[in-house]
Amino acid sequence: MSLIEATASKARRGSVGRLLLNPASVALIGVSNDPGKASGRPLAFLRRSGFAGTVYPINPNRPQVQGERAWSAVSALPEVPEHAFVMTPTDLVPDVVQECVAAGVGAVTVLADGFTEGGPAGAARIQRLRQVLNGSATRLVGPSSLGVVNLRNGMVLTANAVFGEPDPLVGDILVVSQSGSMIGALVSRGKALGIGFAALVSVGSELDLSVADIAAATLDDPGIRGYALFLESISDAPGLRRFAAAAVAADRPVVAYKLGRSSAGAELARSHTGALAGEEEVSAAFLSDCGIARVHTLDALMEATALARRVRPATRRRPPRVGVVTSTGGGAAMVVDQLGVLGIDVVQPSAETFATLASRCAPASTARIVDLTLNGARYEVMRPALDTLIEAREHDVLVVVLGSSARLEPEAATRPVIEVAGQGLPVAVFLAPHAPEAAALLTAAGVPVFRTPESCADALAAIFSRRFRDLAPAAPGREARPSTAPAATDEAGDEHTAYQVLDAIGVPRAATVVLDGYEVTDLPFGYPVVAKVLSAQIPHKTDVGGVVLGIGDAAGLRAAMAAIRASVARHRPDLAPPPILVEPMLTGLAEVLVGYRVDRQAGPIVLVAAGGELAEMFTDRSLRLAPVDLATARDMISEVRSLRVLAGYRGRPPADSEALAQAIANLSNLALDSKVVELEINPLLVGGMGQGVIAVDALVRMQDTAPGVTSEEGVSS
Amino acid sequence: MSLIEATASKARRGSVGRLLLNPASVALIGVSNDPGKASGRPLAFLRRSGFAGTVYPINPNRPQVQGERAWSAVSALPEVPEHAFVMTPTDLVPDVVQECVAAGVGAVTVLADGFTEGGPAGAARIQRLRQVLNGSATRLVGPSSLGVVNLRNGMVLTANAVFGEPDPLVGDILVVSQSGSMIGALVSRGKALGIGFAALVSVGSELDLSVADIAAATLDDPGIRGYALFLESISDAPGLRRFAAAAVAADRPVVAYKLGRSSAGAELARSHTGALAGEEEVSAAFLSDCGIARVHTLDALMEATALARRVRPATRRRPPRVGVVTSTGGGAAMVVDQLGVLGIDVVQPSAETFATLASRCAPASTARIVDLTLNGARYEVMRPALDTLIEAREHDVLVVVLGSSARLEPEAATRPVIEVAGQGLPVAVFLAPHAPEAAALLTAAGVPVFRTPESCADALAAIFSRRFRDLAPAAPGREARPSTAPAATDEAGDEHTAYQVLDAIGVPRAATVVLDGYEVTDLPFGYPVVAKVLSAQIPHKTDVGGVVLGIGDAAGLRAAMAAIRASVARHRPDLAPPPILVEPMLTGLAEVLVGYRVDRQAGPIVLVAAGGELAEMFTDRSLRLAPVDLATARDMISEVRSLRVLAGYRGRPPADSEALAQAIANLSNLALDSKVVELEINPLLVGGMGQGVIAVDALVRMQDTAPGVTSEEGVSS
Repeated sequence: MSLIEATASKARRGSVGRLLLNPASVALIGVSNDPGKASGRPLAFLRRSGFAGTVYPINPNRPQVQGERAWSAVSALPEVPEHAFVMTPTDLVPDVVQECVAAGVGAVTVLADGFTEGGPAGAARIQRLRQVLNGSATRLVGPSSLGVVNLRNGMVLTANAVFGEPDPLVGDILVVSQSGSMIGALVSRGKALGIGFAALVSVGSELDLSVADIAAATLDDPGIRGYALFLESISDAPGLRRFAAAAVAADRPVVAYKLGRSSAGAELARSHTGALAGEEEVSAAFLSDCGIARVHTLDALMEATALARRVRPATRRRPPRVGVVTSTGGGAAMVVDQLGVLGIDVVQPSAETFATLASRCAPASTARIVDLTLNGARYEVMRPALDTLIEAREHDVLVVVLGSSARLEPEAATRPVIEVAGQGLPVAVFLAPHAPEAAALLTAAGVPVFRTPESCADALAAIFSRRFRDLAPAAPGREARPSTAPAATDEAGDEHTAYQVLDAIGVPRAATVVLDGYEVTDLPFGYPVVAKVLSAQIPHKTDVGGVVLGIGDAAGLRAAMAAIRASVARHRPDLAPPPILVEPMLTGLAEVLVGYRVDRQAGPIVLVAAGGELAEMFTDRSLRLAPVDLATARDMISEVRSLRVLAGYRGRPPADSEALAQAIANLSNLALDSKVVELEINPLLVGGMGQGVIAVDALVRMQDTAPGVTSEEGVSS
Repeated sequence: MSLIEATASKARRGSVGRLLLNPASVALIGVSNDPGKASGRPLAFLRRSGFAGTVYPINPNRPQVQGERAWSAVSALPEVPEHAFVMTPTDLVPDVVQECVAAGVGAVTVLADGFTEGGPAGAARIQRLRQVLNGSATRLVGPSSLGVVNLRNGMVLTANAVFGEPDPLVGDILVVSQSGSMIGALVSRGKALGIGFAALVSVGSELDLSVADIAAATLDDPGIRGYALFLESISDAPGLRRFAAAAVAADRPVVAYKLGRSSAGAELARSHTGALAGEEEVSAAFLSDCGIARVHTLDALMEATALARRVRPATRRRPPRVGVVTSTGGGAAMVVDQLGVLGIDVVQPSAETFATLASRCAPASTARIVDLTLNGARYEVMRPALDTLIEAREHDVLVVVLGSSARLEPEAATRPVIEVAGQGLPVAVFLAPHAPEAAALLTAAGVPVFRTPESCADALAAIFSRRFRDLAPAAPGREARPSTAPAATDEAGDEHTAYQVLDAIGVPRAATVVLDGYEVTDLPFGYPVVAKVLSAQIPHKTDVGGVVLGIGDAAGLRAAMAAIRASVARHRPDLAPPPILVEPMLTGLAEVLVGYRVDRQAGPIVLVAAGGELAEMFTDRSLRLAPVDLATARDMISEVRSLRVLAGYRGRPPADSEALAQAIANLSNLALDSKVVELEINPLLVGGMGQGVIAVDALVRMQDTAPGVTSEEGVSS
């Protein structure tokens, strides 16, 4: 069969998702005769789990493997297998994959490592694999993938020993993991929690298919109703953004656990102040803006999906109004406390609602939580309490905390919750005791249930932090750039260039005069003024003595220009005497840093922070994917703690926050059409109400090359 | 039997701990004939669990209860029971307790609520109960106690239905809980984790016996080797401090889970700047300084004890050097990440150690974690890896992360860890998959084991945050004041008085002149100066226009004095024209807030924060129990992020941190002997190296009354 024929036949066979999870036939290349060995397990697993497709063991050294006929090579098979699991040693992988490509195998999963981790030899192997795949329709999972498992049809194509266990718990969540061992850990943990999965994929090095590609490939799989992503990094931001948008449209929640929270995160090397955000902050903003619930506890990665399914991502983040009903004060207090730590206040029912409660089920007292005490274990108390709160429409979500009754009488304790769970208001349960039977009943009924107060609060915060906006896809050249294509070739512009960009996008900036020589002409503005060295080669002007403030007259300006040029000449003898930029000396009620950049990881982002050293020490800033509208810009301002001064802190007059919001939104529009890859205004002075904002310093970097190949290429779904 | 006889006989019978947990006889007062009712359960539980002591059902309305002979009253019993569980309705409780006191019952546990929660009627009942107990030797648990349970001897004296389950898991931890329902939640959760308890006590309203009293009463119980406290508040700080010190001396770890993390915490109402710490910060510092491991995850409350037992509290907090060994990269990465979030970096073994590892067990690479990959599941790889790291002595604790092998081959996977666990270096295990058999094996061997990355990191952080110092007990009048005795009667002193205190404790302060009239005399210091209103009635001077800065000459000073007096007269027409305090206008490299107060909750504390608004917004401060030594004062400075400027931030000269540390230590010595209940210096100016510090504003409050009855009274252990 020729490559063209094979490609055509594969196109007929359907989507990548089906090839990965529901192949009609699989080949086990390099399968071992020993079912205890990693490369022997998949055959044993497939047989034990009753996979109905055709299985082709391939081992050139043996006529039989584990009692079954073995073939010598893919080319020797009676048909082209739809999915091949390559378990050969690293060195053989490129040739084996080439055989698969030649034969027209639809999907290939590669177990071996030694590619991305393997130094120069690994790099050569990667190069070879890329060449092999280039132009073919064969899609590859891995290398370094522990495998692909579909628990629904027994397609257990993995070397992970945990999948040898009988009776997996089958559910409707797809796990996609950048850590191979975690698919085993998750399947066992899920089982203990009573949470099943539809399928699990270890993506390995993502040489071809990324986390996003694989998840997106299952959007047409009716048995998958949610996604749990275990991430080490965000490898394919544009793809993930597209997948997440499609998942929102399809009403399938995406929950992610991402490592890297604690890495301080490299600050952008050539940034002006160093205040621009690190990797962790960017990925947190990215995931939220994609509508992905990013959890911080491992349990919540599994437990959050059921609740996420009942709460649509909002376009803007608003702290949810959480109501708490309980039969156990201590248990409820833990959830309330954890929620409070995450910035979510439990909302007390109104006096009217409490009056209704009093007449129907007599809660302990008028308090933030509706404490039914031990009586809450009784159906005739809990059910009217829930009905009352649901009818009151005073909350966005109700958390029911069950005590010992959940352990001792699981059916009776869970019945009222299960009955009301479909009535419009999302209801979640936290179980104070260990109560696996109650958990199983609730899970079977689709009621979200949490085993720890931490995962309960974590999931709630993550779910209500989603702020999905259907962003226009970034234009070519403004998508995220993978780390293999650093932006070091981008060109720094001088302050004057930065100001021209501000003029173009409608952000007010200080008037300027550029003085090239030594003469001081009449200025179009009065003294006092500021003089600054103007050079794209000097991003940090103060470091070279390049700034003089508060110049009172022409003589002072002349002296300042001379001083600046002398100092710059000392620090940068390589540069010609630079021109001097002169501005009026302005002040505002507050100084704000507003930045835009095309992030290597997440694409265009916009950032707001207070100017000054303390704000920098406290990492006090707000980040969004760009562009943002005015409402989102206002949200960003409200998220920066030290910008509370804008509202008139301690008797100061309030500042023009609205003009600041407009400036943020305008700057963020650089994402739509511009060659700017970074623009940082620091500071943007904010005046009093109605007095607007004005930029008095800015730094810009422009895209150096014409838009060419972007990371779009090769990605499909 | 007279009261005196009874008391004498009880004294012979032994300690409160024995009476509570190992009584020879118990009376069930108000026991119901229905074993399904709350007041019927204890009899059924005692019989089912085989309690060997004598049980006296008391019910005046029935000759028999649940088939056993019932007595009509305590006075009708053939002997004085050692422990009585009072289950009567609320209104009968005071009389019943009086009968117990009259009879000489050693310990009484009261189930009924309606005391602290019960409004005026409740207050009257409390008053009555106090009178009943006053002067007697009978000790009371509750009211509102769900009971006292000793799992070791079947003394299941509780109405909590969970204790009706057979086969409790018996261990060596005492649970003391301010939430009654949590004793049931914890016993079921502990069982699921494979962690048993020796006994559990629900303390209720702590009218007599506090959490600390009950815990301290078991220090002579050889079957108890650790304490798990579930706290809603710190009710008896002096007692808890004494108990915690005794527990440290007895090598029994104390782990606490405390609610209230999220309550913003009431700021001290009459504080100068509002920057003094809220309740949560104080209790966090208090618990750490007591040597108590305060955890934030519920699992860690149970899981942390085994590790805490192997790590002695340090006198000063130092981030631990944590080593990580794993057979599963993904699982280990979660722990490393969580530790990083909590400020604990995993320490990479030295090159020398890696060389030894390479020769003995070939880890994957030279990295922060020792990743043995799947090979780590083999004894002959894991054991030498552990031996090498233990011998290297480069870590304070080793975390071993086990993967699927822990689930599939629990004995083999845990064997190397169990073998090395006693070899000097504390070793803890995190299980990546759900692996209950491995957990049980490790727990049985005394090896600390964690089921989630969050509880593992939480426990490590809590355990290594303990900074136990054997503080001298605070003198009378300087102990914590319960909220029933507010310090509102304390007397505010004026700034001059505050300066006199500073002089007495050796903290430099600005020179001053007090001007009573309208004349400006020659000042003993030069201009410019500052003029401030001097009045104990005006703590917030700027709020009444009471401060003028930067006064250049005598005329200016005269004008400033008039302006201040005019403004003060407008704001406070009730006051006579106040004197004016004049100081030189001083500046420093940094402004620091240093405060001391006798906290109502924790007793004498000392606080350091940066001056200024931003630092206040970010709650950036450090707190300790007072007094502190120089080394601890240095630690405090290093914990305040915005005080990094002291070291010479961004090219500024370094400041005199050592003088600041000395001032902190000096101020903290107010705890030793003084009538000062609060002293806040804001700001304390810090000069350059060797230039010292100088206070330029201070606020003081002095104890108004002579030391009288303190919360000491009535507490024994």
